[in-house]
Amino acid sequence: MPASHLSTRHLLGIQGLTEADIDQIFRTAREFRHVLDRPIKKVPALRETTVATVFFESSTRTRLSFELAAKRLSADVVGFAAATSSVNKGETLVDTVQNILAMKVDMVVLRHPAVGAPHFLARHIDAAVINAGDGTHEHPTQALLDAFSLIERLGPLAGKRVAIVGDILHSRVALSNIFCLQRLGAHVRVCGPPTLMPTHVATLGVEVSHDLDDTLRWADAVNMLRVQRERMDVSYFPSIREYTRLYGLTRARLDALGRPMVILHPGPINRGVEVTSEVADSPDAIILDQVLNGVAIRMAVLYLLAGGAD
Amino acid sequence: MPASHLSTRHLLGIQGLTEADIDQIFRTAREFRHVLDRPIKKVPALRETTVATVFFESSTRTRLSFELAAKRLSADVVGFAAATSSVNKGETLVDTVQNILAMKVDMVVLRHPAVGAPHFLARHIDAAVINAGDGTHEHPTQALLDAFSLIERLGPLAGKRVAIVGDILHSRVALSNIFCLQRLGAHVRVCGPPTLMPTHVATLGVEVSHDLDDTLRWADAVNMLRVQRERMDVSYFPSIREYTRLYGLTRARLDALGRPMVILHPGPINRGVEVTSEVADSPDAIILDQVLNGVAIRMAVLYLLAGGAD
Amino acid sequence: MPASHLSTRHLLGIQGLTEADIDQIFRTAREFRHVLDRPIKKVPALRETTVATVFFESSTRTRLSFELAAKRLSADVVGFAAATSSVNKGETLVDTVQNILAMKVDMVVLRHPAVGAPHFLARHIDAAVINAGDGTHEHPTQALLDAFSLIERLGPLAGKRVAIVGDILHSRVALSNIFCLQRLGAHVRVCGPPTLMPTHVATLGVEVSHDLDDTLRWADAVNMLRVQRERMDVSYFPSIREYTRLYGLTRARLDALGRPMVILHPGPINRGVEVTSEVADSPDAIILDQVLNGVAIRMAVLYLLAGGAD
Repeated sequence: MPASHLSTRHLLGIQGLTEADIDQIFRTAREFRHVLDRPIKKVPALRETTVATVFFESSTRTRLSFELAAKRLSADVVGFAAATSSVNKGETLVDTVQNILAMKVDMVVLRHPAVGAPHFLARHIDAAVINAGDGTHEHPTQALLDAFSLIERLGPLAGKRVAIVGDILHSRVALSNIFCLQRLGAHVRVCGPPTLMPTHVATLGVEVSHDLDDTLRWADAVNMLRVQRERMDVSYFPSIREYTRLYGLTRARLDALGRPMVILHPGPINRGVEVTSEVADSPDAIILDQVLNGVAIRMAVLYLLAGGAD
Repeated sequence: MPASHLSTRHLLGIQGLTEADIDQIFRTAREFRHVLDRPIKKVPALRETTVATVFFESSTRTRLSFELAAKRLSADVVGFAAATSSVNKGETLVDTVQNILAMKVDMVVLRHPAVGAPHFLARHIDAAVINAGDGTHEHPTQALLDAFSLIERLGPLAGKRVAIVGDILHSRVALSNIFCLQRLGAHVRVCGPPTLMPTHVATLGVEVSHDLDDTLRWADAVNMLRVQRERMDVSYFPSIREYTRLYGLTRARLDALGRPMVILHPGPINRGVEVTSEVADSPDAIILDQVLNGVAIRMAVLYLLAGGAD
Repeated sequence: MPASHLSTRHLLGIQGLTEADIDQIFRTAREFRHVLDRPIKKVPALRETTVATVFFESSTRTRLSFELAAKRLSADVVGFAAATSSVNKGETLVDTVQNILAMKVDMVVLRHPAVGAPHFLARHIDAAVINAGDGTHEHPTQALLDAFSLIERLGPLAGKRVAIVGDILHSRVALSNIFCLQRLGAHVRVCGPPTLMPTHVATLGVEVSHDLDDTLRWADAVNMLRVQRERMDVSYFPSIREYTRLYGLTRARLDALGRPMVILHPGPINRGVEVTSEVADSPDAIILDQVLNGVAIRMAVLYLLAGGAD
């Protein structure tokens, strides 16, 4: 395979990727997707690499996906969870990570509640930094695996219409998805209650709607964001029941379309809230494909940033 | 080795195993027991397999035993602890596990506080499920390792007399042991205070006693259950001291027998409560054999359910 | 390489090591330091060994360092954290560890809040015990990596002057460093506020000072202990600001010397308290060398105690 041509040493956000970068990540992920379908789901590609997952917020599924991605590339993985760490002792983020890197760790997968934490870190350390979610900002591997999964169903995304539905305001998934889909030429619409819509959203070049049925008629695919129950108070929305009535995806709503729809969900699902169980388990929903593709995308990102070829 | 003939795809409880299944697990465990006695305690048998330990209750020793069993079969292991997981975010058990399996995980070792959780899971997923304890119901690998350890000392269990002493009411160890010992032809007696005896216990075909000395005279082996201190309140028993006086295994009680006794304990031990230190450390006690055999039994179960031969 | 000649089966403290032991650990660590600088940072030396890290206090960086050391020797590592363990269920330390060892674990790395816990354990179990910190007593691998890092800069330590500055009273790092430096022939001075100085300190054969500037003029190297903020109350010292004014290492203090100084810090750093950021990031500071050398020292200790040759 030819040498890597990613235009960046880090994966901080979709905003730092060119269309060619995304294309190369997808081509590499496709190779690894085949590896994952084989009986021996492992390649020796990163046998010389040690990856640290450094999580300042708990996120079992994202951490697990990166951990499995690293292990299937034969990398060594060490985990660092902030709850039990010297972070509590007043150490700075850069010192914490420098300390880990000094033990000859090659790459850092960082989940942090502060917007921009991985960007700050990347300016101060030598190793490659992968953003696994920074506050309400970006979650680039999620956007990549969503787009990759959409392409599996819809083919190239140029001209396709993708709606993102729900709590746009607090969602790093939404923002990274908007950047990624636009870069790939898709039309993007966000749909949700006005209180969960960021004021700047129109400036991102997306359509804005508060009507799910209209949005479904418009869309080729719909990404149903998780309702974060802790956000469901009077300041955002009257009740879960009200939310579900207006923005919950049901069989009836889909049947009214008279055509198939591709349904994504970043998980974990609140069954009966943003999607019904029937919809979540229908063939239209590609939620478990997303999970599997997530491992392939993360293998590709680790591999390419470690200096591998595509 | 010939192909596996286990009659089940899952290990949900002893109730789902035939005597031939148990026999095959024991023969396989005996092989792995030899592996564990070698300098290189590892075989490449499950190099293609990824095992997830999914623990909704903390249990360091059981999780560690499964983890070591998997590693010594060269399987990859990923751990999932509910405390830090999206379970807190309202996700269902099946969705949580489906998500892990979608990352190409092959087997799930499940510890869950709800009776029947692994059985429910097995009906909804494709992968093999191993019950590592479901509420007060079953803990099949514990029963298998107990029986395996007893056979090492006593030979075949048909006709042998085994007593289970203590808190029968709250013990999944007791229930799985009763099923396993009966399947192997042993006579089983349960012994403990009436308040810690389930009302249905006589229907299980076991003898019931409230007299430890009489039970010791009857038994070839005695399995001393752990006193769960949080259960020791007025509704079950007046005091630890009272419990120990009536149901604690002491040197004096054993000396009064005038013959050896085989003593098991599932751990962790409350020294001075259900057994004295002197008894726990005596050659009659096979507590650490149980621990080692636990790894061998779990290697056998993982191996056979992964489709290995015996 | 010749067979190991360590005079001890355990690493409980510097006090149990001869000068020849320390010399052999350093020679072995130097070999492993070269391994860590290679692209493939792994050797198959302990492929037959399983190491358990048993931490009754949380310490991410020490645990991570031992874990990476073990992995780079190709050992299997299992982790045991007291918070989620049966320790909460009233089990004794020896039973907890015996249980782990019964699963054919070969070595135990123990961090425990009680002084002497690893010594007690070593008397009751067969496996090698490595003290990763026992209360305010010893932290031998920290002292070894500090001395090793000093030798890299200063050459042999005989006759060299090393100051340890800060909270001597509560520091296991201080005590192990004193023992180690003295065994290697260095002169040791401790410097800090009288309230943070143990009453017995003079009996250890060290100089005692309460004046940092005088101590800097005396010293070839200075080990700046971390200020434990939870200890900073009226009984020990009026305020952080006061501490920093008297015992904080600043550029101005170093410039006043007119010569280089070697600066160590065991981490995590309180920037602006015991050292300024400028000093921590200066070429005089060898803090990240200490971290890297820590992995090499721990590889050497694991290797030699496992019966390896130097």
